[in-house]
Amino acid sequence: MALPHGVSETDFAHALDRFRAAVGDEWVFSSDEDVALYRDAYSIYWDEPEERVASAAVAPDTVEQVQAVVRTANELGIPLYPISTGRNLAYGGSAPVYSGSVVLDLKRMNRVLEVDERNAWALVEPGVSYFDLYNHIQERGLDLWIDPPDPGWGSVIGNALDGGGGWTAYPFRDHFGAHCGMEVVLGDGDIVRTGMGAAPGVKTWQENKWGYGPWVDGLFRQGNMGVVTKMGFWLMPRPEAYISGTATVAGDEGVIGLIDTLNLLENQQMVNGSTQLNSGASGFGSPGWSLDVPIYGPANVIREQLAYARSKFEQIEGCTFTESELIMTQGPGEEAPPGVRLVNFGVPNLSTFSLLGRSPFQPNPAGGHIGFSPILPRRGEDLVRFRDWYRANEAEASGGEDLGIIGPVFMTNWERSLVGLIMFPVAKDPDYNRRVRAAFERWVELARVEGWVEYRAPTVYQDLVAKTYSWNDHALTRMHEKIKDAVDPNGIIAAGRYGVWPKHLRDA
Amino acid sequence: MALPHGVSETDFAHALDRFRAAVGDEWVFSSDEDVALYRDAYSIYWDEPEERVASAAVAPDTVEQVQAVVRTANELGIPLYPISTGRNLAYGGSAPVYSGSVVLDLKRMNRVLEVDERNAWALVEPGVSYFDLYNHIQERGLDLWIDPPDPGWGSVIGNALDGGGGWTAYPFRDHFGAHCGMEVVLGDGDIVRTGMGAAPGVKTWQENKWGYGPWVDGLFRQGNMGVVTKMGFWLMPRPEAYISGTATVAGDEGVIGLIDTLNLLENQQMVNGSTQLNSGASGFGSPGWSLDVPIYGPANVIREQLAYARSKFEQIEGCTFTESELIMTQGPGEEAPPGVRLVNFGVPNLSTFSLLGRSPFQPNPAGGHIGFSPILPRRGEDLVRFRDWYRANEAEASGGEDLGIIGPVFMTNWERSLVGLIMFPVAKDPDYNRRVRAAFERWVELARVEGWVEYRAPTVYQDLVAKTYSWNDHALTRMHEKIKDAVDPNGIIAAGRYGVWPKHLRDA
Repeated sequence: MALPHGVSETDFAHALDRFRAAVGDEWVFSSDEDVALYRDAYSIYWDEPEERVASAAVAPDTVEQVQAVVRTANELGIPLYPISTGRNLAYGGSAPVYSGSVVLDLKRMNRVLEVDERNAWALVEPGVSYFDLYNHIQERGLDLWIDPPDPGWGSVIGNALDGGGGWTAYPFRDHFGAHCGMEVVLGDGDIVRTGMGAAPGVKTWQENKWGYGPWVDGLFRQGNMGVVTKMGFWLMPRPEAYISGTATVAGDEGVIGLIDTLNLLENQQMVNGSTQLNSGASGFGSPGWSLDVPIYGPANVIREQLAYARSKFEQIEGCTFTESELIMTQGPGEEAPPGVRLVNFGVPNLSTFSLLGRSPFQPNPAGGHIGFSPILPRRGEDLVRFRDWYRANEAEASGGEDLGIIGPVFMTNWERSLVGLIMFPVAKDPDYNRRVRAAFERWVELARVEGWVEYRAPTVYQDLVAKTYSWNDHALTRMHEKIKDAVDPNGIIAAGRYGVWPKHLRDA
Repeated sequence: MALPHGVSETDFAHALDRFRAAVGDEWVFSSDEDVALYRDAYSIYWDEPEERVASAAVAPDTVEQVQAVVRTANELGIPLYPISTGRNLAYGGSAPVYSGSVVLDLKRMNRVLEVDERNAWALVEPGVSYFDLYNHIQERGLDLWIDPPDPGWGSVIGNALDGGGGWTAYPFRDHFGAHCGMEVVLGDGDIVRTGMGAAPGVKTWQENKWGYGPWVDGLFRQGNMGVVTKMGFWLMPRPEAYISGTATVAGDEGVIGLIDTLNLLENQQMVNGSTQLNSGASGFGSPGWSLDVPIYGPANVIREQLAYARSKFEQIEGCTFTESELIMTQGPGEEAPPGVRLVNFGVPNLSTFSLLGRSPFQPNPAGGHIGFSPILPRRGEDLVRFRDWYRANEAEASGGEDLGIIGPVFMTNWERSLVGLIMFPVAKDPDYNRRVRAAFERWVELARVEGWVEYRAPTVYQDLVAKTYSWNDHALTRMHEKIKDAVDPNGIIAAGRYGVWPKHLRDA
């Protein structure tokens, strides 16, 4: 067992005893076999000393139990690493950022507390997966959609807190942006409700996002200021239909107009689906670009929206525009239309694993991947510049080897900006992983110099990326640290997450 | 001159000298005549000892000057009260929450730093008014709209930070929600950029809202954690056209379906304009309800959206639906269409003052108003309950007098929730004001008991309202205080704003 650094065996044993008293013996895990289940199957340090591993795990069932665990940890100086369902593959899985942390596993807190059909919102606990929420809505026959990511076994809360997104219509696709109200246990065990939830007896906790006074919810995004125990989400009333068009241009000149037109249409809310930009057959190397623009809404409306989109794209020299058939969406209890990608129709699933040659029934796959996700300006010329820069540096960054790195894929699914995603394979072979790490670290640095920095990072690289946000001597990180020390003075919660370390570990 | 509490005359004189050295002699105001210009013309304590008044004012022109002023204040313990253009009438004007504060007047920092037409955003300084931003866009001939509130002389940043909104399309109407990236001077003079601005050399500061790690922007909404010196805003590419419909029902039964249908249409993004709910001719006392649903977008699209809205409203028993003519919007440099309300067409103006019998040329009007703004659930039955409760308590709350209080007006212009606005007249007569205050305070308490609490409050009532957010022994306020003490340890910035006091004033 890996003891948390600086914690005596006696204190640790005492903490586990108190955890058992709080949550029940069977929900504290300290055997090597049990703790190994919390390893990150996609760790780029698999089986190496630097692999981030837990010392134990504790799985409370209620908010009061979370508070009891946090109070004990706070008193005895035990680092905790909260996870929801722990499915954050490619970004760290369920392993802690700070080795030796006790995983605070919230999977048992899987209650859908309320779903309101009349104003389209849900209030859930952290252990609620996209499957759970979908099933709840189906069982009640509500005419609401959820916005599942790939894959659907993850936590609705966990995905939002890590900055994840899905595949249906904007604004629901921005999972953190679509939340409304939180309940959070702070580092001393105190409990806070945000937004309207801060007022007792109100019915608008999930209806008004901002509440009164400073809005603290943002602190818990990619953060470690507390343990989120409830969170509200705005849902989409099921859209009647779906239609899509594809705009294609022959060369790089055309992509400038393509992206400008996409910006116009999205910023006017005319295109609300998750668009996809393709370059040639393999996403790379072809002189042509195409853009899929899906639209959700009433059939007659989206036909006109698509016609409007066509009229704008056809103003681009040499652009051709093709339209798909309109598809009516499935009502409550009905199957999704045949042949569609399920996540685009609000249905969570695990098909992404079969695409990657993996399966949920194979918990320790031979390989995996980690993502390098720099944010780029939403302009065609920046996109071409990024692609050319990637090509120019590709060989050198990989040390002249073919490491199987895939990229860049330009993700246009966030509003207003885009992501130049590069996927790095991960193996169980330390020698290979070492070379992949060298390449990853090289790309972070090469991109930083160009003004491209990441919006999200695997746990082992959260520090490295945080350091690229260095404006004014890392002023934002220094502000994060001040807040961290104020709301979690003993530095108990998720030390190091997204580069924010508590005082006693910063100084070390 | 009102000295700040606990500051010696010597220290204060020294501070003013240093302010003068930093910003120039002519930009430090300490004469009674000059300081009086910062009084709140709508103060409900006008000329009474409790009126919140400044001790002096200082008007920097650059971020470096702001830093110099804040550093001096931090060193000498001088409370500062930052204002942008200081036009926050009905919510405190330019007078501080904490009497004796030095107003940090940012009106000279009125530069429109950048407006990007291709991705529709602006980066501005705090002194930029809606007029300034509108004029800049007009002069450059950009095909972008801004979202002006009533009236247009206020600060784009100040309005957003106070939780204000405008009258065009969602999501641009939620001014804080539509921002992207900030620059902030903290209590010790340090300076932070948020979001992507935290990384040097990036071009996506105004394109990606969330950045990396904990998102701190929310702390500056209705907050006092720092002085915002730059802020980005997402703008709306000019919509081609505007259309509106009105759904009318005869009695209270119909209003349930009316609001449920509004929720459906807004949550589906089919109605994006600022809707208006009317009850009878005067907003009160009539058995009928009507709802205006404006829609912005391409002509052919919004005709279909209106037809869809009609089909949904006509499913309500007894509902009639009428449509307005479609209006094409004005292009850059063109006049707004005749007869329209200008703010609905993105044009800032001051006509609201003539409606209220006041004028911008009358800086000390005989009267004004303050707003009581409780958030209500978006359901017809809650709205009827609120109205009936208001009627039942109206006479008693006003001590049996007719104080000229107007309400409730149901504001449906926020997404997902609604506001039951009650307007309280303010006069220059202490005796009358005393009775209005008693009524206002009574309504805050009566509403709190019912689960209705305010999203915004005049400065003198920010404490009273903050106390209604009391869940778990005021846990949210306690968290605000911890953060306040961490980022502004000497409690220099806007003490008391929205109920958040620094340590040395909390304990007093």
